[in-house]
Amino acid sequence: MSANSAFGKIAELGRKLEALEHAQSMLSVDEAVMMPVGGGEKRAESMSMLAGMYHEMATAAEVGDWLADAESEPLDDMQRAAIAEQRRIYTNMTCLSADFVRRQVAARVRSEQLWRELRAKDDWAGFLPAFEGVVAIAREEAQLRAAALGLDPYDAMMEQYDPGNRAADIAPVLDRLKSFLKDFVPAAVAHQEAKRARRPLKPLNAPFPIEKQKALGLAVMEAIGFDFDHGRLDVSHHPFCGGVPTDVRMTTRYTTGEFISSLMGIIHETGHGLYEQGLPKEWSHFAIGKARGMAIHESQSLFMEKQVGRSAEFWEWAMPLIREHLGADAIAGWDIEDLLAHVHEVRTGLIRVDADEATYPLHVILRFEIEKGLIEDTIRPRDVPEEWHSRMVAYLGLETRDNYRDGPMQDVHWPSGAFGYFPSYTLGAMIAAQLWSAMEKDMPNLRDEVRHGRFVDINAWRRDKIWTQGSRYSTPDLLVRATGEKLNAAHFEAHLRQRYLS
Amino acid sequence: MSANSAFGKIAELGRKLEALEHAQSMLSVDEAVMMPVGGGEKRAESMSMLAGMYHEMATAAEVGDWLADAESEPLDDMQRAAIAEQRRIYTNMTCLSADFVRRQVAARVRSEQLWRELRAKDDWAGFLPAFEGVVAIAREEAQLRAAALGLDPYDAMMEQYDPGNRAADIAPVLDRLKSFLKDFVPAAVAHQEAKRARRPLKPLNAPFPIEKQKALGLAVMEAIGFDFDHGRLDVSHHPFCGGVPTDVRMTTRYTTGEFISSLMGIIHETGHGLYEQGLPKEWSHFAIGKARGMAIHESQSLFMEKQVGRSAEFWEWAMPLIREHLGADAIAGWDIEDLLAHVHEVRTGLIRVDADEATYPLHVILRFEIEKGLIEDTIRPRDVPEEWHSRMVAYLGLETRDNYRDGPMQDVHWPSGAFGYFPSYTLGAMIAAQLWSAMEKDMPNLRDEVRHGRFVDINAWRRDKIWTQGSRYSTPDLLVRATGEKLNAAHFEAHLRQRYLS
Repeated sequence: MSANSAFGKIAELGRKLEALEHAQSMLSVDEAVMMPVGGGEKRAESMSMLAGMYHEMATAAEVGDWLADAESEPLDDMQRAAIAEQRRIYTNMTCLSADFVRRQVAARVRSEQLWRELRAKDDWAGFLPAFEGVVAIAREEAQLRAAALGLDPYDAMMEQYDPGNRAADIAPVLDRLKSFLKDFVPAAVAHQEAKRARRPLKPLNAPFPIEKQKALGLAVMEAIGFDFDHGRLDVSHHPFCGGVPTDVRMTTRYTTGEFISSLMGIIHETGHGLYEQGLPKEWSHFAIGKARGMAIHESQSLFMEKQVGRSAEFWEWAMPLIREHLGADAIAGWDIEDLLAHVHEVRTGLIRVDADEATYPLHVILRFEIEKGLIEDTIRPRDVPEEWHSRMVAYLGLETRDNYRDGPMQDVHWPSGAFGYFPSYTLGAMIAAQLWSAMEKDMPNLRDEVRHGRFVDINAWRRDKIWTQGSRYSTPDLLVRATGEKLNAAHFEAHLRQRYLS
Repeated sequence: MSANSAFGKIAELGRKLEALEHAQSMLSVDEAVMMPVGGGEKRAESMSMLAGMYHEMATAAEVGDWLADAESEPLDDMQRAAIAEQRRIYTNMTCLSADFVRRQVAARVRSEQLWRELRAKDDWAGFLPAFEGVVAIAREEAQLRAAALGLDPYDAMMEQYDPGNRAADIAPVLDRLKSFLKDFVPAAVAHQEAKRARRPLKPLNAPFPIEKQKALGLAVMEAIGFDFDHGRLDVSHHPFCGGVPTDVRMTTRYTTGEFISSLMGIIHETGHGLYEQGLPKEWSHFAIGKARGMAIHESQSLFMEKQVGRSAEFWEWAMPLIREHLGADAIAGWDIEDLLAHVHEVRTGLIRVDADEATYPLHVILRFEIEKGLIEDTIRPRDVPEEWHSRMVAYLGLETRDNYRDGPMQDVHWPSGAFGYFPSYTLGAMIAAQLWSAMEKDMPNLRDEVRHGRFVDINAWRRDKIWTQGSRYSTPDLLVRATGEKLNAAHFEAHLRQRYLS
């Protein structure tokens, strides 16, 4: 297409938007990794100005005209798909009025600020009015989005994070998983206790110097396939994977008391990083060239961390690396079972972010049910603590009555107005397991590959099925194309049974 | 002024431009300090897009209308000065047509690329056609700027770097300095040789571990007054001072073989950094809130490095710090004269960037005379090697015939199209000396302040006279207001005599 075509104009705008995104991504990384505290105020102002410029350029009325024109231009299949995705983004960005967005930002800022203050004081009653405000705004947002997208309100919210996800499709899958886990978790804990009675958990021989842990982490990243010509590893308070596909900035944090959580964090973020590095570079200035969404992104990190990084086969390969980098004394006298006992621990708890892979989905399902009720007006904000408590008892056997800080006030998502995001975490876990199953059909020697630290074919499979697909397909369509079936909890259940009951 | 006033519109645009500058500055810092090599291509593309957006916004026709309207709005003195400076910037940015800028960029890119390749091969003849192209474009630029600004062509070029600088004013000052230095340099070398005959130069007791050098550098920066809440020190191949006034990013580089050049580099860049940190924050979104220009900026770094950092008084204070951070063995048995012998070395050489403060101005004056001739068409590009050689012989007693790499091909400035910049270096050195003289009149105990590592009053004087003035005055006006007189080489000459002949 020529530069004067509507497609060409959209491409040109895309390059400008990509430059602004590049700046925003890198400024965020710099803020977390490098910025001195006094730089924060001006940085926030600059980020806000850049975001405003981005929004103004991306939502201009003429962009709508270009899209309409491009839709009737002679395009090839990929170009047509690119315009369709661009149209979806444009609709999602323009369906809220400027006036509504101003009210929304005000409600969210008030609610999140109050949450930070009152969570520390465990003060639900003080927080409730602001929470009611942010839920009211979220319901209004859901109605506006639903009208523009022709979707149910909660689906319209999920659409922001995982295009194509519908509650009617995922609720039955999550229900099945919930039933499974309610029995599975106690069984896994009992199995673990029996094992520990035979073989007590060995303590780690701390301290582990940070420089040595870093060298170990870099060696593992390199082996997994992270491209250090197009990325690096730094330190920040909250680990993340940021930057841009040509320059992926990963972070971790270290404690000298143990090395496993930092190493697992690195493997997890490397999963995100490989996805970004594998996106189709020639489409980087179009929405279609970006990662598909939260669930698929999380499936890539969880695949690396859970399917690979916590497998027995991985540790067969990695234990020598630990001795090489941390010294022979680090895990003196350990065999692989001692190490697996650490990375396979199952323990129920109140806090989602501390949960292991077996209990985590129950935290998510609880939130999914409640936030869906909040958006659909079948649950009132004031009733959330009771809804939370009764589910915690039913799903995990834990009490949270009168414990708001470790109950409904523990997450930033709702206070900041993010409804429809939580399912992505557990969809990601299920998709990761489903990808593993599909991959094992294509590569019967898959476990041997991990056992020998060979990740070339594993990455090639994912590059082909997921990474290079960018945002060409909806989340469920991408999953079907990659695995041959719809979302199916059976793979995740089999993964858990194999790991925790054998 | 209300936001709807023309002044308000210019302020609002200023905040957007400031956000883009913030992004560009920080992306440049990241590129030098953090970016992996593979990130470069997309980074360059993003920087180029951001620069294009900046130019488009800053030079829009409506900005000219706002300026005209603001000029007749009721403004206070500072606002009026702000609009005048904004007008100056606007005129300078809009006086070249888009078509001309395209031709200019093409000529510069070709010339700079060829220069990188052919300098290594010492191939002047191969480079000449591209050099002729870039000189022709520079002459055309000078004519266009001269017409728009009502200045002589070379003055119009200098105006980009030091507003208000005129060849008619600085040429006589540089001529006087040249006459002085032609005799002074041999005398200083002879004086140095006589000293060394009595007291041989002691070698440094290397290696000096980088971590210890870094701690020493940070301690010196802190003592000098650098605000680490609003800045930091990192490592890059070419040391620089970048970032934004609220978050100044300085770099240095270390070698374990010696510690003096890195420490001097840190002190130099800290001079730049203090200036940036001291700019008037409330005007950061206007041109008037920015540093005045290259000569004043260089005067601030050279003041810290030359007037302060290489003085005997400074080392009286700093020698204990060296022993504290690098260990008692680092300069075992040294007294201050041994150290000063290292930091006061005078040696003629072919390369400008390796030159000491006594010989450096001769390198600059040579370039000033030649580039002025090139712009004014009194020197042809093909004659530059001979013009260079004859001046090197006359000014420094060195031959450069048939040595292009260490002669006219040594600097990136001309190949990249930067004509009119070179004088700023030596103007900065003279201004630094002139500021010291003026400061000493106000603070008769100035040398004692340095001797005791007390920089509060020294910085307060400069904050008042220079830093908080931003770009309110032209370079020569700022100098007169700060020191009570026009540019006067006598101060720099007295500084050199005191340091190198006593």
